[in-house]
Parts: sequence; structure tokens; C-alpha cells
Amino acid sequence: MSTYGTLFRVTTFGESHCASVGAIIDGCPPGLELSAQDIQIQLNRRRPGQSDLTTPRNEKDAVQLQSGIEQGVTLGTPIGLLVRNEDQRPHDYTETDLYPRPSHADYTYLEKYGIKASSGGGRSSARETIGRVAAGAIAEKSLLATVTRPIVDAHPTRCPHPETAERMKARIIRAKDASDSIGGTVTCVVRHLPPGLGEPVFDKLEALLAHAMLSVPATKGFEIGSGFRGAEVPGSRHNDAFVQRADGSLGTRTNWSGGIQGGISNGEDVYFRVAFKSPATIARKQDTAKYDGEAGTLAARGRHDPCVVPRAVPIVEAMTAIVLMDALLIQKSRVAAMSLLPPITTLPPTMVMPQKARQEAANTTTQ
Amino acid sequence: MSTYGTLFRVTTFGESHCASVGAIIDGCPPGLELSAQDIQIQLNRRRPGQSDLTTPRNEKDAVQLQSGIEQGVTLGTPIGLLVRNEDQRPHDYTETDLYPRPSHADYTYLEKYGIKASSGGGRSSARETIGRVAAGAIAEKSLLATVTRPIVDAHPTRCPHPETAERMKARIIRAKDASDSIGGTVTCVVRHLPPGLGEPVFDKLEALLAHAMLSVPATKGFEIGSGFRGAEVPGSRHNDAFVQRADGSLGTRTNWSGGIQGGISNGEDVYFRVAFKSPATIARKQDTAKYDGEAGTLAARGRHDPCVVPRAVPIVEAMTAIVLMDALLIQKSRVAAMSLLPPITTLPPTMVMPQKARQEAANTTTQ
Amino acid sequence: MSTYGTLFRVTTFGESHCASVGAIIDGCPPGLELSAQDIQIQLNRRRPGQSDLTTPRNEKDAVQLQSGIEQGVTLGTPIGLLVRNEDQRPHDYTETDLYPRPSHADYTYLEKYGIKASSGGGRSSARETIGRVAAGAIAEKSLLATVTRPIVDAHPTRCPHPETAERMKARIIRAKDASDSIGGTVTCVVRHLPPGLGEPVFDKLEALLAHAMLSVPATKGFEIGSGFRGAEVPGSRHNDAFVQRADGSLGTRTNWSGGIQGGISNGEDVYFRVAFKSPATIARKQDTAKYDGEAGTLAARGRHDPCVVPRAVPIVEAMTAIVLMDALLIQKSRVAAMSLLPPITTLPPTMVMPQKARQEAANTTTQ
Amino acid sequence: MSTYGTLFRVTTFGESHCASVGAIIDGCPPGLELSAQDIQIQLNRRRPGQSDLTTPRNEKDAVQLQSGIEQGVTLGTPIGLLVRNEDQRPHDYTETDLYPRPSHADYTYLEKYGIKASSGGGRSSARETIGRVAAGAIAEKSLLATVTRPIVDAHPTRCPHPETAERMKARIIRAKDASDSIGGTVTCVVRHLPPGLGEPVFDKLEALLAHAMLSVPATKGFEIGSGFRGAEVPGSRHNDAFVQRADGSLGTRTNWSGGIQGGISNGEDVYFRVAFKSPATIARKQDTAKYDGEAGTLAARGRHDPCVVPRAVPIVEAMTAIVLMDALLIQKSRVAAMSLLPPITTLPPTMVMPQKARQEAANTTTQ
Repeated sequence: MSTYGTLFRVTTFGESHCASVGAIIDGCPPGLELSAQDIQIQLNRRRPGQSDLTTPRNEKDAVQLQSGIEQGVTLGTPIGLLVRNEDQRPHDYTETDLYPRPSHADYTYLEKYGIKASSGGGRSSARETIGRVAAGAIAEKSLLATVTRPIVDAHPTRCPHPETAERMKARIIRAKDASDSIGGTVTCVVRHLPPGLGEPVFDKLEALLAHAMLSVPATKGFEIGSGFRGAEVPGSRHNDAFVQRADGSLGTRTNWSGGIQGGISNGEDVYFRVAFKSPATIARKQDTAKYDGEAGTLAARGRHDPCVVPRAVPIVEAMTAIVLMDALLIQKSRVAAMSLLPPITTLPPTMVMPQKARQEAANTTTQ
Repeated sequence: MSTYGTLFRVTTFGESHCASVGAIIDGCPPGLELSAQDIQIQLNRRRPGQSDLTTPRNEKDAVQLQSGIEQGVTLGTPIGLLVRNEDQRPHDYTETDLYPRPSHADYTYLEKYGIKASSGGGRSSARETIGRVAAGAIAEKSLLATVTRPIVDAHPTRCPHPETAERMKARIIRAKDASDSIGGTVTCVVRHLPPGLGEPVFDKLEALLAHAMLSVPATKGFEIGSGFRGAEVPGSRHNDAFVQRADGSLGTRTNWSGGIQGGISNGEDVYFRVAFKSPATIARKQDTAKYDGEAGTLAARGRHDPCVVPRAVPIVEAMTAIVLMDALLIQKSRVAAMSLLPPITTLPPTMVMPQKARQEAANTTTQ
Repeated sequence: MSTYGTLFRVTTFGESHCASVGAIIDGCPPGLELSAQDIQIQLNRRRPGQSDLTTPRNEKDAVQLQSGIEQGVTLGTPIGLLVRNEDQRPHDYTETDLYPRPSHADYTYLEKYGIKASSGGGRSSARETIGRVAAGAIAEKSLLATVTRPIVDAHPTRCPHPETAERMKARIIRAKDASDSIGGTVTCVVRHLPPGLGEPVFDKLEALLAHAMLSVPATKGFEIGSGFRGAEVPGSRHNDAFVQRADGSLGTRTNWSGGIQGGISNGEDVYFRVAFKSPATIARKQDTAKYDGEAGTLAARGRHDPCVVPRAVPIVEAMTAIVLMDALLIQKSRVAAMSLLPPITTLPPTMVMPQKARQEAANTTTQ
Repeated sequence: MSTYGTLFRVTTFGESHCASVGAIIDGCPPGLELSAQDIQIQLNRRRPGQSDLTTPRNEKDAVQLQSGIEQGVTLGTPIGLLVRNEDQRPHDYTETDLYPRPSHADYTYLEKYGIKASSGGGRSSARETIGRVAAGAIAEKSLLATVTRPIVDAHPTRCPHPETAERMKARIIRAKDASDSIGGTVTCVVRHLPPGLGEPVFDKLEALLAHAMLSVPATKGFEIGSGFRGAEVPGSRHNDAFVQRADGSLGTRTNWSGGIQGGISNGEDVYFRVAFKSPATIARKQDTAKYDGEAGTLAARGRHDPCVVPRAVPIVEAMTAIVLMDALLIQKSRVAAMSLLPPITTLPPTMVMPQKARQEAANTTTQ
């Protein structure tokens, strides 16, 4: 459905041509300084028309906060927000509308609901991700995250490696010039994540991330750490050997695990990669069929992103922040409940070792 | 947590050395003929010791049904079931236990819970998947699924392509002989799935499948349809053009979408691929550190699977059946609710076209 | 949290002095004719200022639909809606604000969140119920419910028994004239509910109704059927003996069960009663303490409802419709799944009797 | 369904005549000392045959822990447990089975599921509550609760007021001697509950308690604090004025609110009352109808509780502990997240007063 999360919970609404798109973000910690600008910055990064790599439409996408904040501080109550759709009227019905767009959601929405929005993507429109990005901005602020945006945003492709970025740009422009489109991948790295996040067995951290990423429109794949290539490496090389860190805790020498072991973060960088397909809507003519089965040729009207990857970066960031904030809140409650219990002194060391070990290491260090 | 699903819901329990592992399966349709044997067949496929490619341990894994079934027919109430652990006592504590196994869950469970099972994988053990496989067997029976098991199971690798299967076998035996391990991928194809399954926006069908697959131990990646390679193909080639099927409905000429568009099944085959890493537990010596940070060398005791892929096949099947059964029940309720409403006659054709088109096609056919 | 329901799901936002209050209603069947007016009618019934029994404030409470509907027909996607708050600015801070209002939520919100809205009830304001009433109007329309509003609304107390209504009115006016307040009870009767709704064991239909009712502000009690008085009646009188209905199905001679047995509706009228306390905010002076513990005297400013009962009626109706719509969707999915299974012929008659019996009765009737 | 709770989550299974009844308790804090005996004590209190007020059946109901505990300490993983059913075989089918028992769940289960267990109550049997009571014992231990059981259990009715207890006993024996049954109410008082528990708006603490209580078989009503009688008292008397407690915090002079305001615990005693109807199964003859509609006379076989109230006390306690443990975990996560945020210094005092006030009071006290 349209709700995601357990304690940090996002519910979105909106189609491409209705009055507005928006979200309710529930479970934000009370007492957080939060302004519309915090959210707007991220919405602007998601917005079309930022460079010649994205569609030239220029929607303003100004967020309107409705509730949950007073005097610039969150109340702990649900944060309602919305962004007006600039063009709210469905267009007039034309010959082109008789075709379900290939690899788009027109056909499946009709099969599922028996009815679909008359114009544009309806609920499957990329405008639906506005609510996600807004929620992600709130999650990120709640996590007190520091994000390396300047480096990421230095190039219009949002690829931080300059040579690769230029090659990507050339490939996208080539697709654009050919009235075609192209896909790509987004890699996300999360640093300084505390160990202990993720809920075995069904809600392993990588499972939550995979769920979140594959819920983003146009995604085709997800891999954590070594990913698909990891399947080809023997265990003796793939295993991440432990080493002692400066603070006495354990780290790993390599990080093929991608910062998650047994579904739980281990304190190393979490990194994963998401595949985005080429946008389905292209100006090129396509031989396909109408809803009534009649064969014909479709050429999409309007202007469209030749590649979603640059605009997908803030969406990947947002979904990541949402997942981590929820996982953090759940783990925090466990730690708080554990801290109320009397200590257990009778257990064998292998059942409770790290705390003891780290404490001793800490003692040694301070002596 | 340990619960998965909305209307078809699985909750599992159990560690490697406790009394039993098991599950409660809630939401099974009443009136389904279901025997312990239906479940046992799948548990046997998951079981170790089936060939020289898997660990020679021979656990019997006999399922004991506790509730929810009478006279061989489901009552619609929760089905409780369990499988005894053969070796229920934790082993004596040895030098090896001072090491968190690299790329295993020992360290992260301790970080998360402050305590862990003294022996084996505890909750992260592959024995946890017994509950999933049992639930999957029930889901599959509920779906009235016909599964092409003979072909899949013809070779011990469960690869249906004989030449590839032999190459896989050789690679696994090479790893085994080197006291090492190796990974691999499992591809799953679902045929004859009705269109309309999957709930936009957060619970797209591919997002649910990705979540389910990445919740399986040792998985590192998921891709649907064209997957990561799809990112490199221009839209003009990646788009699945529509064609009219014999029954008047629309199908697609190609299927790079993997049977899902806009998060909703479209009636074509759903197929996806899951990456499994090489098992972390290997007999080879590994230079690593103890819980207390002291560097040292670990060599795992006992016998272990050199490759999880053959045994992973029934687990992938099970999680797939669980996801689909849940998605089907949710869609069924929508269709039932829609069918109660009076028909809408005033909508423009693009909002409701397919039904009309198909109905007309059907009328034409029957004339 | 702020979300209610499984398949028909309501999420609300809004405080008393923020920009707007609203809701996202997810899971509405697609293809339902639905207008803003359908919702406005119910919001008007909830609104203050309808008679001299309610507060004279006159907020317009005009609903603004945001999404999920096109051409007056639901799309099956989330319906976003909001109602502007007329007075959005918190008032200036005065001496009175130093007191947590007795039996109000000021103190507990501060304890829970460490911060609270500076004015009015914040999230605990009765304005929060606007989202519920709007969702209830949608649920009611989805249920194709016919509601006996004219009779209920004939008197400003919404008591359909004229003499009692006059006595209630006199009691409320007496409280009002004394700058005081008074409580009351609302009884709700649901007719023509199909049997089979409600999910044992934790989600019995009466448990869902109790949850929904006690989530309404100012409620203190819930009883189903015979309720508290039923506890005093011996089983021989309390039991509802079965009788055959005209259509061959079974009904009950009495209905102390309130239409629910074993947590499942039985086809008889479902009826329950909800207790509402006297409103906490009264103009009378109250000896109480400030937040800092200093004793003092508080007299509430402004005008307030002397009794919430008349305005509570549409809220009780709304929550009832929401619960029933969700329960119906869940049961519909079960029935649909059952209908796909092959019939079971080998079971003893006591396990499957009613269908057979009813079918035979039906056959007899038609012969 | 058969799952209850968000972070502390209970899932139960089992009918009256299947192999066993049991539960999976997920979310128990790790590191809690927990033995089978902790659970058995509560199961024994629930068990029939404890006095001449309950049915003389003597089921042993010995709990078998399956998982989640090692060396007498919880691991934080799901705790699986079960209790064997002594008489697992359904009885032979007799004339009596042709009657759906009046006010029992026979008829509604058949309507809902199209099939029902052939013997006894099936899933609606009181044996289903075994899982709840076991889960409650774990929740109670997690809450480090001290329960005044000796006083409660001093009399077989579990009424702590000796004179009333004797009158209750006489009334129950009168019902028993008349082959009849009788109902009653259970009042539960929770002392020393911290303020801040309960989640507005749909999951108010009283709403969660009402849900939990009305999910217990044979309940007909719930009231919190002043309850139904509170509806008759004017606000000027019903309001709970604040007073400063010795520790500087605020308490209330009266407690008509029942320790909950705005859906959130306020630190005062939480108390509520639950109505239980007279048991439906009585030995007296009842004029009723068979499944096929034929009128006839039913006399229940076997021995039955003339009153469920004494045995209901541990079930009410259990459900209360489950609700509170879940609410506590959720609030703990919020407090932990808040504690990470930088302090806000710019807010008006009414938005953040209590902390300041209490801190100042504390400072004054310690000077």
C-alpha cells in the first residue's frame, strides 16, 4: 500500500494530474528543528529541469507544511505536507491515449484497478516520489546525518568521479539526441552507521533496503556489498576477517559484506547499488498495440528525461534515510529495554563476550 | 521481526541448538486439503546430506503439525508446526568459540542483543529457513501451483541445464576439495501468474520479492527481468511492445520487464535472479581476531556446505510462494469489493478501456 | 500511531492551530462514485455551531480533495484530503497557559513528547476527528450503506427518542447555564451486516470496534450487546437460541450477543454503546496547579461544548464504517480464495453442515 | 488475525483438540532471566480444576519452551512455546453435534470459514488463551512487575474483598447447582506506570487496552476510570485537578481519568473494568435449532465452568502486561531518539514547561 515503516512511518498520496502530491510522516522525534527549507533543498535536487540531462519542464515543487511543526520545531505528531501539481487538469483525449505505453504502468493499473487516471502516469508518475524525498529529508535531519552533497552534486550526472561523469553525460546526451533513453546504476554509501541495526529474520537490514529501493519507480536490481560478483568468489577470499580497531572494538579488514552480517549492521560502511532501467517514455516511434489489441505505432508527446539516474540520487538517499531511521528507532527501544534489566553474571563468556572485551580494552587504554 | 506478510502471514521461531524450529502460518484458506507429507517433500529438498555437494549431516527434519488442520483439511485457523532439533545441547566451549566467525552473524548478534546463542549459528542458522520452506509449501498448495520440480531436481545442483549443471558441480567440488566454499545464483520463473498482483507504491511486487529474497541468509543481490544489464540498454530496445494474445487480452512481445510493470504483474512470466555468496564457514585457516581483539587463526570445525545454492532453491521457491499468496489475497479482496459497486458509464474510454476491448474481442470470438 | 486499518487504511494529521487537518485514505475500492459533497455532509454534522447545544464557533470545514479521484470516480489510489484551519496562528501566551488543563491532554503530551503545541488542544483537539469523519464517509459509501440519518438528526441531541431527547437537551442546557459540562452515551446499531466479519482471535469484531471507539477523544467505555448488565444474567437467559429464518439460514430469537459470536458477526444486528465523559474544558473556576507545581485557579477562556454527545454521533458512525469496511475486505479475500479450491467431500457433516443444510432448505423451497 | 503487538508481538495457534496450543513471543528484551516455571505459575492460575468454582477437568498444561532462551536467559530471538492438548482426538459425532450451541462460536465459525473443528470450541476454545497467558508472563517479567497475587488469589473467586468474595462464591454455586452459569466483572489496577505510554491518536492507551480485553473470549464491555458512570457526572466534578507531588512532578487529586489523559498515561494508577458474560455452555436444556434449521432441544454434555471470572483474572493480567510492554518499548524508542537531539532554547515556556519546572523543583529540593 502507500505506507512504509514501523516507528518512522511514511504514507504518500497523489497522482500526476490531481490537486497535489504529498505525505504524512509519522514518528518523527519531537524537539527536532525542522524548516520547510530543509525539505525544499532535497525536493529541488529531485526536480526536473536542473540540467540539459533532465526534462526541461520547470515545476516549482514548493513544499507546504501542514502540521506537526510549531516555531520551527517538531511536535512528535504527524507531519503533513504537500506540493501542488502545477498542471492539474487532465489533457484532452487524443489518438495517442489509445495506446498503453510499452513498459509503462498504463496497462497494469487498468488490470489491477479496472480504471486508471486519464492523463500521464497517474499514481505511477515520478511525482509520487516527492513524498518520499520530503520524508527522507526529515529522516536525514532526525539522524543528524552529514551528507557529502557538494561532491555528489558537483556534476549534473551526480557521479563523483569526474572522468566517469563525463562519459555518463556523453552517453545520456547520445540517447537524448536519438530520441531514446538510457539506464544506469546508483551506488549509495552510508558511513558511521552504528552496529546493531536490522531485525532478523525477515527484516534484515539488506532486505529492508532492497524493498525500499525496488519500490522506487524504474528500478530493476539491488545488490549489497560484493553483490552478484560476490557469488563468484570463494569464501576464503570473500570472508571479512576481523581486526581490532583503535577504540578496542572489532572491525573488518575487508568489507565484502557491505557493512551487514546476519542482517545486522556491523559498524563498517554500508554500501549498495541499484539498477535503473532506461525510461519507458521515448519520442521514438514504437510498434505496439492499442488497448483494444489493434496494432499501431506510438510516439510519445512532450519532453522526457533521457535518463533517470541523476534525479534518482536524492530518491535513493531519501529511501535509505527512511529505512535507517526506522531501524534505529526499533533498535533504540531494545537497547533501552535491555538497560533496565539486572546484569546477568552466570553466562559463559562466548554468550556475552564483546562488552566485557571492549570494556577491558577501554580500561587498558585509559590506564 | 519474525513475521512476514499481511493476509498470508508467517511467523517463525528457533535457533540451531534449541528444542525445535517452527512456524505459525496464519491466513491459509480454509477447506484446503493439506497433509504433513505436502510439507515434508519440500523440507526434504532443503535438507542437508542430499548429495556430495551438501554437508553430510543427516538431520531427519520430520515436520510435526500442531494445529489448524483436521481430517486432512485446513480449518482457516493458524497452522502451528515444528521440527525437532536433533542435537539440542550446545557443545562445550572451546578455543574456537573465542573467535567471531568472519562474515558470519556471531559479532553482529552480540552487538545487537548483547548476548548470543553459545553454539552454532543460533537464530542466524540455516535451520531458521525450515519454517519458511514449510510455509512456502502451504502457500504453494493454496495457489494450486504446479511446479516443474522433476526438471529442477534432476541434477544435484538443481540447475536444469545439464551442461551448466556439470560445470557448476565441478566448481563446487573444487571448492570442497580446497576446504573452501563458493557462491552462485538462483533464477526463479513464475508462469501463469494473473495480472494485477502487487500494491503500489511501497509494496510493488518486485519490492516484495526483493525483500523476501534478501531476507534469506547469504543473499547479496536481487534483479528482476533485465536487471543490472537492463540499465545498459536504451529504452527503444528495452521497452516491451504490446501485442494481442489469442484470448483478446494484451501480452508483450519481449519481457525485459520480468512480468511486472508499475509494480503490478502483467500476466507475462515473472522471473528474477538472486545472488548467494560463498558460505562463511570454511575449514581453511583464517587469520582474524578474537572477540577481545587479539589476533589469531581460526579453522572451523565440522562439515559444512561448500555451496548453498542447491539447497537454496526450495527456499527461493518458498519465499516466492509466500509473497504471491499474500499479494493474491490482497488483490482478491479488491476485486470482490469492486464487483459489488454499480458500473460506471460516464468515464472516458482511456480510463476503463481494456475491459471493454476484451469484452468486445470475446464477443467477436464467440460469434 | 496515526494509522488505522489493514486493507482499508486511514492516516490522519493535524493539530488545532496548524495549517490544516487531513487524512490519507488508502484501500478505497476503485470505481466508486465519490464527490466532495459526500464527505462534506458528514463533516457538517460533526461541525460545531449547529445548535445551542454546541459551541457557537463557526468553522466552515470545507473539505479539499487532493488525489485518488478523477471525474468523480475513485481510482483505487490513496485519497488525500484536508480541511484548512481557520485560525492558524497560535494565540499570545497568557497567564492561563501556565496551567495544564485538568483532565485534558496538556500534561500528558508534554510528558510523552517533551514539547507540546502552544495553543489549544494541539493534536488532542477534536479537530483531529475531521480526518476520521471524512474517512468514515468514504467507507460508508464503499459499503453502499443506507443510513437512517433523518431520524437520528431530527433532534439537536441526535437522540431518536423524542421524550428522552428533550430530557437530554434540558440536562445539557443546565450544564451550559452553570458554566459546566456533562457527558452521555451513544448507541450505534448496524443492520444488514453479513455474517462472517471479524478475525479471531486478537481481531474479534467487538475488539476492533472497542479499539476504534476508545480511540475517539473523551470516551470512557464500550459495551457490546448486553454489555455490563449481561454479566449479571444467567446463561440460561443470556443465551441466544437459534431459529430458522425464512431464507433457510439460522437466526437467533434474542440478541444479547449484539450480533457477534466468537468475534464474528452472525447476521443479526450489531449494536454497542459508547460512554463519553463531560468535556474537560469548562468556564467555571477550577482549583489546580501550574506546570511548575504552584497551586492556583484556572478558568478556561472561550466557548466550549457543554456536551460532546451530539457531535460525537457522526464520529461513532465514521469509526464504525471504517472498521466494517476493513473487516469486509479481509473476509472477501478469504471467501475468494476458498472459492478457488476444489470442494471437499469427505468431511463429517458437523464440520461443514450449514452450507449443505441451507442448500437443501433452498432446494426444498424452490421445489 | 492471530498476532498482537508492534514491538512486543504475540502470535498464537491451536484449537481445543489438536496436538498442542502455543505461541511465538517476539521482541522480548535479550538478557532477561526467564524459566519455564515463570510461565507455568501463570498457566496454573488459568487452569481449570482449581476450586469447586471451576470445571473439574484437570489438564496439566505443562509449558514446553522451544526457543529463544539459553542457560535460563533470553536471547532476544522469538520464544516458541507450546502446551500439549491432553485429549487430542475429536470425539465421535453424536446427536448433540447437530446443534450449534447458542451464543457460542459454532455457527459463526462455519459462516466465516465454511468449515469448523469437529469437536469442542476449536479455535474459539478457552484453551486459546494459554498462549496469551504465557506471553503475559514473559511481558510481566520484562516489565519487572511486582504483582499483588497473594491478595488476589487468597479467595477462589480472586476477589480481594472478603465479604464480596463470599457473596460472589455463593452466586456462582447457585448457578452451578441450577446447571446454569453466571457472569461477572474483573477490575485491573496498574500501579507505578510511568507517564508517557500510549500512542495518539488511534492507539491511545485505553484503546489498546479495550482492544486487548474485548479480544478475550466471553467479554462484553470495557470501561476505563470513571467509565459509564462518568458520563453522568458534570465536568466540574469529573475533572482531575493537578497537585504537586513530593518529587516536584504533577499528580492529580482525583483519578476519574483512570490514569490516562489524551490517550497517554499520566503516572497515576491505570484502572479499568471488564465485563464477562455467563458461559454459553450449560447443562440445562435449551430450546434451539439444528444447523439444518429443525427446532429441537440441546443439553450440553460434560462439565463446564459455571463462571469464567476467577480464571479470567490471569488472562486480563496477561493481556494488560502485553499491551504495556509494547507501549513501553515504543515510547522508549522515542525518548532515546529525543535524547540524541540538541536542546531547543528558543521555545516559549508553555511548549516545554514541565521539564524546566521539574528541574527547578529538583534543584530547589536538593539545595
